[in-house]
Amino acid sequence: MFEFRKIAFALSVASALPLAACGGGGPGDIVLAQMGSYHVGGRAVTIEGKPVREVRFTPGGVPARVDPNGTFLVEHAYAQWFEPRIVRGAAPLLMMHGGGLTGVTYETTPDGREGWLNFFLRRGWTVHNADAVERGRAGWAQFPDIFRGEPIFLAQHDAYERFRIGGGPGTFARKEVLPGSQFPVEAYDAFVRQIVPRWTTTDEPILAAYIAMLDRSCPCVVLAHSQAGQFAFRAAEARPDKVRAIVVVEPAGFGDPARAAALKGIPVLAVYGDFIEQDARWPAIKGNGLRYYDALRAAGGSVEVIDLPRVGIAGNSHMVMMDRNSDAVAGKIQDWLAARGLWR
Amino acid sequence: MFEFRKIAFALSVASALPLAACGGGGPGDIVLAQMGSYHVGGRAVTIEGKPVREVRFTPGGVPARVDPNGTFLVEHAYAQWFEPRIVRGAAPLLMMHGGGLTGVTYETTPDGREGWLNFFLRRGWTVHNADAVERGRAGWAQFPDIFRGEPIFLAQHDAYERFRIGGGPGTFARKEVLPGSQFPVEAYDAFVRQIVPRWTTTDEPILAAYIAMLDRSCPCVVLAHSQAGQFAFRAAEARPDKVRAIVVVEPAGFGDPARAAALKGIPVLAVYGDFIEQDARWPAIKGNGLRYYDALRAAGGSVEVIDLPRVGIAGNSHMVMMDRNSDAVAGKIQDWLAARGLWR
Repeated sequence: MFEFRKIAFALSVASALPLAACGGGGPGDIVLAQMGSYHVGGRAVTIEGKPVREVRFTPGGVPARVDPNGTFLVEHAYAQWFEPRIVRGAAPLLMMHGGGLTGVTYETTPDGREGWLNFFLRRGWTVHNADAVERGRAGWAQFPDIFRGEPIFLAQHDAYERFRIGGGPGTFARKEVLPGSQFPVEAYDAFVRQIVPRWTTTDEPILAAYIAMLDRSCPCVVLAHSQAGQFAFRAAEARPDKVRAIVVVEPAGFGDPARAAALKGIPVLAVYGDFIEQDARWPAIKGNGLRYYDALRAAGGSVEVIDLPRVGIAGNSHMVMMDRNSDAVAGKIQDWLAARGLWR
Repeated sequence: MFEFRKIAFALSVASALPLAACGGGGPGDIVLAQMGSYHVGGRAVTIEGKPVREVRFTPGGVPARVDPNGTFLVEHAYAQWFEPRIVRGAAPLLMMHGGGLTGVTYETTPDGREGWLNFFLRRGWTVHNADAVERGRAGWAQFPDIFRGEPIFLAQHDAYERFRIGGGPGTFARKEVLPGSQFPVEAYDAFVRQIVPRWTTTDEPILAAYIAMLDRSCPCVVLAHSQAGQFAFRAAEARPDKVRAIVVVEPAGFGDPARAAALKGIPVLAVYGDFIEQDARWPAIKGNGLRYYDALRAAGGSVEVIDLPRVGIAGNSHMVMMDRNSDAVAGKIQDWLAARGLWR
């Protein structure tokens, strides 16, 4: 353990040094060999028997016949990827956002700082930043024809009260912030604008598209937030050879304990923020996680849990990657990956 | 005219040379000083009187109370921006996608080549690549509560037949491609996956958010495709001091001829692809454009129209930026901007 701490400390210092990432580019530059995007996965669905409509797409434009029947391509995911000139990660880092969110989660923070996408890119990770099925640039499908159920829209106050920024119901209206909160509360509305409609019936197509993403773009290190915990673990159960490590940040869902053996070769890091004990829901969600990690360990797997307050990083909300100390938390993840030989 | 051609030719050669964009980065690298994203514009809307639901977001998770009432932040737009280390554009290039699409339009082409985002970034343009209100990472709002009407979903065959890839209705099923088409038809499905649901009732909020984007991020050169033609011209009518030039690629909508004088200081380039005369709708759409450009000229404005087939670039579909010769068309735009002193 002492040995490990020394290594981790050395790497921590190394990762904090100015980065000469460019083949000669200045300090502070992000030097990319390539960047691009793609859609992956999904299926074709045929709809029949609906009336044809005439649609004028643009005022003064020419009407077009739009047939709601036919074959539709649906339930694909999207990712944007960046490959630095000097690659230091042993595999691409695949970022999966949480529920009601998109890859914007990892971009600029609500208060305008660089997010985790840039953090890991600047350290030489190839990054694939996903939009899950139904979210963002992945698009969404007809309901109830294709998606079952109705979408959920979150009001302005919802995340504030549920993501441990305020301390629960009523705190948004009362402008109460948890004491010591690291969330940039003055920019809260900028975070709310990142929230998109979501369904609760699309877990299977989301998982299927993420598995297709693993097949296309991996082996990867998977970094998953909140809802995406389940997708990271379940996709790894389906494709253990495509996942080099899993980092879950406040996961809300998990894999199947009965399939834990499939993950025994995949190191797992789970990161939790602050104020969990006093929240109405998070003690139970975290408890689900701790039981699942025990199942992974019992099957021969390796799981490290970082409770941020216990390592001196206090005040984190559920949106750890947006909190003012987001770089400090990313540094812990970076150090953990480096200590596992996944970064050189 | 001879003078202009000589200048354009010289610039064309210059823009085709290998780019030493990096402060020492290798040829082929994209060297960025910064990259990030933001949401902008929109409004708060209050919904009342709907029943509260209990939602289990994740299987096995802890139910949460979701109140569909409350205040919602809606009708904002999103943009991702990239600033090269060496900026050569006189102003950022703001890319507006067409209807039913997102900023993915300008990213990797369906067949995996670099799109116009990379093209202009590699030439030293700061680029803001937008997702309009309702599309992609901008998110969308409750309907009919906030958005009027219902969304439209496009079937797999629709764009093929309407965007001059095939020659009209029935051509997708018959696998007919327009002779000489430059669209990468083998990758057509990858393009279909880029299409997202759209409304036809959201022009005003889209415009309002684009005006907010001009206020936030411009003066800019605005590059607009298809549906976004109207947003480029109408946003410029509202903020003529925020728009240095407008490039419209197959615009489907336009500004108000009565407000043409507001745009007289803004040079306009309009680019059209091939197969227009034989299409059912495009002769009328283009005719609308030509009449509008005449109004701009009559008010003292400057408009250049490039009919690609007339300058030796044949076979373009409506999705010019995805066609196999997309770089050649981008080169024409680049040369036009450079000839107007907007690129050094």
